[in-house]
Amino acid sequence: MSEVLVVGSVALDWVKTPAGEGKDVLGGAAVYFSLAARLFARVRMLAVVGSDFPREHRSMLETKGIDLEGLETARGKTFRWRGAYAKDMNSAKTLQTDLNVFSSFRPKLSPAHKSAPIVFLANMDPELQWEVLSQVENPALVACDTMNYWIDSKRPALKELLSRVDILFLNDEEAKSLSGEPNNVKAAMRLREWGPSAVVIKKGEHGSMLMAGERVYAFPAYPLAEIKDPTGAGDSFAGGFMGWLASRGAGAPGVQALKRAMLYGSVLASYNVQEFSTKSLEALDLPAVQRRYKDYLDLLSIEDGVLDGRAV
Amino acid sequence: MSEVLVVGSVALDWVKTPAGEGKDVLGGAAVYFSLAARLFARVRMLAVVGSDFPREHRSMLETKGIDLEGLETARGKTFRWRGAYAKDMNSAKTLQTDLNVFSSFRPKLSPAHKSAPIVFLANMDPELQWEVLSQVENPALVACDTMNYWIDSKRPALKELLSRVDILFLNDEEAKSLSGEPNNVKAAMRLREWGPSAVVIKKGEHGSMLMAGERVYAFPAYPLAEIKDPTGAGDSFAGGFMGWLASRGAGAPGVQALKRAMLYGSVLASYNVQEFSTKSLEALDLPAVQRRYKDYLDLLSIEDGVLDGRAV
Repeated sequence: MSEVLVVGSVALDWVKTPAGEGKDVLGGAAVYFSLAARLFARVRMLAVVGSDFPREHRSMLETKGIDLEGLETARGKTFRWRGAYAKDMNSAKTLQTDLNVFSSFRPKLSPAHKSAPIVFLANMDPELQWEVLSQVENPALVACDTMNYWIDSKRPALKELLSRVDILFLNDEEAKSLSGEPNNVKAAMRLREWGPSAVVIKKGEHGSMLMAGERVYAFPAYPLAEIKDPTGAGDSFAGGFMGWLASRGAGAPGVQALKRAMLYGSVLASYNVQEFSTKSLEALDLPAVQRRYKDYLDLLSIEDGVLDGRAV
Repeated sequence: MSEVLVVGSVALDWVKTPAGEGKDVLGGAAVYFSLAARLFARVRMLAVVGSDFPREHRSMLETKGIDLEGLETARGKTFRWRGAYAKDMNSAKTLQTDLNVFSSFRPKLSPAHKSAPIVFLANMDPELQWEVLSQVENPALVACDTMNYWIDSKRPALKELLSRVDILFLNDEEAKSLSGEPNNVKAAMRLREWGPSAVVIKKGEHGSMLMAGERVYAFPAYPLAEIKDPTGAGDSFAGGFMGWLASRGAGAPGVQALKRAMLYGSVLASYNVQEFSTKSLEALDLPAVQRRYKDYLDLLSIEDGVLDGRAV
């Protein structure tokens, strides 16, 4: 089983959605990513929490097989995010962000971290992403996420980082803002010129797009009749995507592998949003993932024939 | 070759998009539908224009093989719509609507119209849609479109119409408004209870959804790097969808046929938005449609395997 190194936030969230509310629940990009990716690969997490971080969260992550050697406990409070989702659940309104111990996070990489074959740099300061990446000795595959805050405030650092990244994950608003292109297809083409050989644009309930091998591929989201909490959808997407890629070995993925990774990403994101916080991902096992993957393939499949005037 | 009867508007549009402007250009739901559907089936159009309707538009439609026996010329002006699209091109802002001769439109059906096997009731007053439908003797397949104006002002008439409709086309905002459900999947399930065996939700650049046979199927839009004019996208989608269904005979379509119809709808809509007004649809031929359909299938196809740790 291959390995994935993830660096990013571990948080305590206060989330309000039309389906309910979760206060001081486990969250953070590194957590959502790890809980999704661990279904396919060994995950090593590089992150920081405060001394208030509940023991049971740490135990749960360990129980799920996630390597927490790089989860540092610093004096102070854990990163906290408070947000609310409106009726359509497509985007969160951030009500409060307290970086707390995350603001002085300087990841210390162990030898195991430094030899990671696959690296996911979750959304955080691109300078910090760079600092971590530059310590990894010879990664075969590097992916990163970002957000509008860094696009606006640290564009040069972000562009420099992208020159060393293979796969860029971002949402459609971010893709448009970073590229300056109002069209997703053009945005993805432009972003590829900056380094990444693949660009993944996440569109929430509207699905996702992949730019790879000179083409743009589009995928619908797995249709759900009920969504309880969209928090972490993007990170669990990336976790499913990168974890599945890791499971097939560390070699450079071809377009067909990337397309399958898009589906695994969608499947993990779809499970994640069905429950508050990490509840759904915690309960998930690989057979359930494969069941939904097969069902998703069935939804997408077209039994094609010729124009022969007969029903199919 | 099977036949489709369409009733709806023929218009002269004044459209502004970020890509340019078209003044007094040919438009209207029945026109877009017909120009898409005629690639697959014989189309009979039931509509009205004013005495100002340019002769060349009528000639063009005739040249494309569309039967205009039911295209009445009334004293007065042709229906005019003026609208503008913002940067993301996802929804038009209506600046002006002059119904003109369309306001007193009372379609007169000939014997050929009355024996139509397949009927598309384009967006218009649901009472008028009902009036037309009740004159068709024994249609094998009936589809309709609608809009928020009728959902708000003539809900009971619309619900009554739906009890006699097989396939309902509407956009996601309309689906949510008509059903009262904020989720597309639930909206489609609810709308099916009112009569239609299939519900098609159009989401513009975000693709489309099909509820049929107890399941919801989602499709991405065909990815385009440039869109010039989204006007008529929904009607050319319906035209491609219904036209292709007609080409395979008038029998009740199964789920697999409906899924293929969704792709043909998407292909026709994708061509339509690449040029202003009806320019793209006018120039289109079946080989070009089939080329893009094959390409679309290729974009969607997943070469599946097992989790064997090898690249695919």
